This record gives sequence, structure tokens and C-alpha cells, in this order.
Amino acid sequence: MPSREVTVAVLGASGAVGQQILRNLEERNFPVKELRPLASARSAGNTVKFRGEDVTIREATPEAFEGVDIALFSAGGGVSEKFAPEAVKRGAVVVDNTNAFRMDPEVPLVVPEVNRDEIDNHKGIIANPNCSTIQMVVALKPLYERFGFDRVIVSTYQAVSGSGAKAMEELTEQSRSLLEGTEPKKEIMPVGKLEKHYPIAFNAIPQCDVAEDNGFTLEEMKMVRETKKIFRDDAIGVTATCVRVPVLRGHSESLYVELGKDFDLEEVRQALREAEGIVLQDDIASQVYPMPLDAAGHDDVFVGRVRRDTVNPRGLNLWVVSDNLLKGAATNAVQIAEHLV
Amino acid sequence: MPSREVTVAVLGASGAVGQQILRNLEERNFPVKELRPLASARSAGNTVKFRGEDVTIREATPEAFEGVDIALFSAGGGVSEKFAPEAVKRGAVVVDNTNAFRMDPEVPLVVPEVNRDEIDNHKGIIANPNCSTIQMVVALKPLYERFGFDRVIVSTYQAVSGSGAKAMEELTEQSRSLLEGTEPKKEIMPVGKLEKHYPIAFNAIPQCDVAEDNGFTLEEMKMVRETKKIFRDDAIGVTATCVRVPVLRGHSESLYVELGKDFDLEEVRQALREAEGIVLQDDIASQVYPMPLDAAGHDDVFVGRVRRDTVNPRGLNLWVVSDNLLKGAATNAVQIAEHLV
Repeated sequence: MPSREVTVAVLGASGAVGQQILRNLEERNFPVKELRPLASARSAGNTVKFRGEDVTIREATPEAFEGVDIALFSAGGGVSEKFAPEAVKRGAVVVDNTNAFRMDPEVPLVVPEVNRDEIDNHKGIIANPNCSTIQMVVALKPLYERFGFDRVIVSTYQAVSGSGAKAMEELTEQSRSLLEGTEPKKEIMPVGKLEKHYPIAFNAIPQCDVAEDNGFTLEEMKMVRETKKIFRDDAIGVTATCVRVPVLRGHSESLYVELGKDFDLEEVRQALREAEGIVLQDDIASQVYPMPLDAAGHDDVFVGRVRRDTVNPRGLNLWVVSDNLLKGAATNAVQIAEHLV
Repeated sequence: MPSREVTVAVLGASGAVGQQILRNLEERNFPVKELRPLASARSAGNTVKFRGEDVTIREATPEAFEGVDIALFSAGGGVSEKFAPEAVKRGAVVVDNTNAFRMDPEVPLVVPEVNRDEIDNHKGIIANPNCSTIQMVVALKPLYERFGFDRVIVSTYQAVSGSGAKAMEELTEQSRSLLEGTEPKKEIMPVGKLEKHYPIAFNAIPQCDVAEDNGFTLEEMKMVRETKKIFRDDAIGVTATCVRVPVLRGHSESLYVELGKDFDLEEVRQALREAEGIVLQDDIASQVYPMPLDAAGHDDVFVGRVRRDTVNPRGLNLWVVSDNLLKGAATNAVQIAEHLV
């Protein structure tokens, strides 16, 4: 039996991540006394299913957080900036899925498998890292502990669901159009708010967020900055290339890590196998490796293609796959909430 | 006017690459006196279109190469091993698209933009490199000349057409099945001759060829070995992760290169812009970068996302896209043939 039951608000309850949060709260038997789904005025009045019952979505207002113990936010950075202080003022602890507070030095940025102890340092807000960062740091954690490293080069293969439910519809509709030989509609990918839109069906787009001045995208720089903060180690250098591919759910990552000391490959596999949150699927000779279609719907981080670099004997290559809506977002947030109760 | 007209055999004329070779010979006005399309007994008797006429495919036999000046092979490694010596014996020069002779020290491995001068050293056979190697070395050539490098880390996003026309059908059929909610047929991907087959539609498969003993795949090791041979520089260390993605035509590559000396980013862009065979599409602020849907059907290698590493000031990131059936196969072979006449 849980020690206490709590009132949980889910802001962005009708979105792709919000839906997964509700399912996670159910499946993990989270001790919910009252569920309070919140959204914009446009979605208010609709219902969501929770434990077999229809629960009406309320409009997110400052007052809607009265009596809330834990508030899980996934309705965009602007919404978080507006409502997180209001929720905190009313006594709630906010677990925020957006980019709004991640680099705020007052806000812990938490992946439980890596830095669970920081949860207790919160001052009302705890940030959930970016999806592509989360699965990478889970895979890197056992290597960091056992061997150390200060250099990671990563290329991502990201699913469209990172941009929400509408992006998933866009990929399926575009796929249909291209199979039928008609012109695909382009409204969301690669970045909804930017001017140009390209088809993602049967394509690969090397842009997952807006550009920064250094030629990297914000998505790429999130992986750089968040990794340092989560490991509390500014010496970790990450270089990222973030690419959108025609996959609905599940991000994949090709990682190159230069370990801090000599290693035995079997020792690396053993460290990964024993690590919290990781499933090792590593046997290329038998065609065993992680793939996004298999990882979708699962909470774990799947690791395979473990091999020593042919050039640098301390270089290690990994292929890391996880469901970006689950461990990359909803599951990680609910795990943080579990620690809070 | 061409200096001489020649008899050209195309072995594997009905395949995905063979078809592109025929189109290339036409479009580039290759001085063909007689076109001799060859294939297995199964395809013999069918016709191919060339310069508006139907030309009957003949069965590939040793005698079929009598009178042939140039033979372009793309019918698989075993077929090349069998027929290349027969064609050479009869006076033909073979340009081979398969893996059969690439690492043979007697056989030049040629990408004209990089090592055109080696064509003249042939002893009857010239090998065309692997598709993913070709586009990478074209992009690397101007950097090698101007700055030098000995370290490349590459992750690929490879189109299914690298496995032939049937793999393209498989992707479209699987996409239809998954959109309709029916079970997709799995017969070819990731490697036709291996035991296990996985859906490639809406998926990413980190295997493009059979496994080697070191945990890398043959596709990955081709990039390692062929790059050294093409640049005639054994000091070049390449680490590759080769991944199949649901794209029909056009391989993409995320490259990290450590240059041999300090560089100015504008100087790098200028070198790429001026290089033979490269089109620079590099302006992330305006959402300009190469994508496989745009590159399909074009002969060039498209380069973008040019940026300095955030960690190592000599580190450079690039995104390189090219049509794997054209520059990655047919175009490169026909360019070699052009040099021969």
C-alpha cells in the first residue's frame, strides 16, 4: 500500500505525452486520490479515460492548481512558464516536461537512473530532460561510473511523435499520399512554428528544432547542455547531430564514446546488462539489436551494437533505442513523481 | 563529337542499378556503338529501353562478351567473379559495381573526383566503391586536400534501394500494410540471404550487411577499408555505424571529421562549394540542408549542416546526401567509363 494518496494534475492531458502520462499513472498504480486533467480553454470540457472512467478536462487557470500535490506539465514551454509558478505558489510540486526550466540552476534536471538524489533539492519545480537526452544518459550512466568518459559523439534517428500527435498524423497522411502518387500536405515537420515545411514520409530531415547561432539546432544543444547538468560534470563534451526520420514512436541513437580507461568488451556488456532501466539486445551475429518498432510501448532503454572502435581502443560504439513518449517523457516524469510520494 | 564509339555490355541490365546505368548512358550521351544488355537466363529474352528502342536482354555467357569494349557489371559479387575474367580475356574493360574485386590490390578502386588518375593503372577490371563510401569520399576530398585529416566518425541513414528493386517494393508494400493495420510481409530487409527479416517501414534497422567477427557489419567495414584505399592513406581511421531507414532513394550520412589543422568555417564552405561533384546546401537559419527526397534523381553529392564542433575546435560536422543508385552506383560507373573512351 502506498504511504499516501495524492491529487495529481496533468497539464496537457489531451496531448501525445499527456495521454501516455495518464496510462503510466494507471499501469504503475500511482497513488492517485484525485486526477485533475487540465488543458487550454479549447480542450476544456472534453474527457479523458482514467481507470475506466471519463474525467472531464478543466481549463488551466491559476486556481485550478488549488489542492494539487503533484502537477505534471507537458503543454509547451510558454504554458509552463505561465503556470508553474502559480502551481508552486499553491503548494504543488511541478514535474515539467518542457524546455522552460531545464537549465535553471535552481531546478533539478532529473533522470532517476542517473541523478535520483537531486529530486529532493527541488524548490517546487523539477525538470524532465529532453527525450533524446534521457535515453542517452541512461545508456551512458553505467559507463560513466565504471570507466569514466569526457567525449560523446551522437547522431539521432528521431520519431515524429516528438512533435506531438499531429505530427504522427502528418507522417501517416504523407505516407498515404506518396503511395498514391498525390502531393503530400506539409504543415508541421520539421518545426511547426518555422516557415518552411518538408515531407518527412520516405525522407530524413536534419533538423529537429530551431537553429542556434553556432549552426547547431536547439535539439542538438539540449543534448550538449543537459548531459553536463545531469552528470554534474562540465568536462563532458557532447557533439550531436539530430535528425528526424519517418518513424512514429521510438528514437534511435548512434553513439561513439571515448572511455576514460582501457576496457574489456565483456565488462562493458556486463555493466550495461546490470544497469537500471537498460535492456541489452546485443548479438549482431544472430541479428539481435534494438529497433524502434520493437521498443515502442516499452518503458526501458534498449542498447545494442556494442563494439570497440577499430581505430581508438578506448572508443566504444553503441546503438540506443527507446520510446520517446515513454522513457523519453511520460515514464521519466511519473518515475520522478513516484519518488516524491 | 566523341573520339570513338564503343560496344557496351551492361550485366544486370534489369536490376535497380542496371536500369540507372542505361539511363545514364543515354543522358550523358555516352558514345555507344552497340548496347548489349546481359542478365541471367531467367531474364534473357526480356527487353530494355535504350534511346527509344527495345533492346533484347541476352543471357550472360563468356561468349556474350566477344567484341565488347566496356562492360558495366551490377549483378552481384558471385556473377562478377565468374564473368569478369571472361570479359577481360575477350578484350573488354570491366567496371564492376560489386564487392568482388574492390580490395584486390591489382584492381583500382575509383571515385573520379578523388582518384581519377588510377583508372589508367587498370589490368582489365576497375572497381566501383560501395555507395555509402562514394558519397563520403567525394565530400571529404576537398577537406583532405586543404586541411588533411586522419579521423572520421560516420553514422548512415541508408535507403532500401541499396538492396535492389525488390527491397523498394517491400518498403512500399509494408508501408501500405502498416497503414491498413495488417501484418507486413518481411522477406528482404535487412539482408536478403540472412535468416531473420524485420519490417523497415516506420522503423530503423542498424544492419545493412552481414556481421564480421569484430561486431561491425561488412557495410561498415567497407567504409573503413575502401576509404583508406581510395585516398591511398592507411592512416585514415574511419568508424562507421550503418543503418537502414524507410527511405526509397538517397543515402544520408552524419559525419564528424577531425581536421589536421585549424580552420576557418568559411574556408571550409568555400572548399566544398568549389569542389567537383558537390552541391553545398548549407544555411540552417533559413532551413536549407540536403534531404534524400530532394537528392533522388540527381548525380551530385549534397553537403550541408557544416559546423564546427563545440568541443574540439578542429572537429567539423557535415550532413552528406546523395542518390545511392546514381553517384553511389550507376553515375560513378559511367563516369569511369567516360574516362576510358
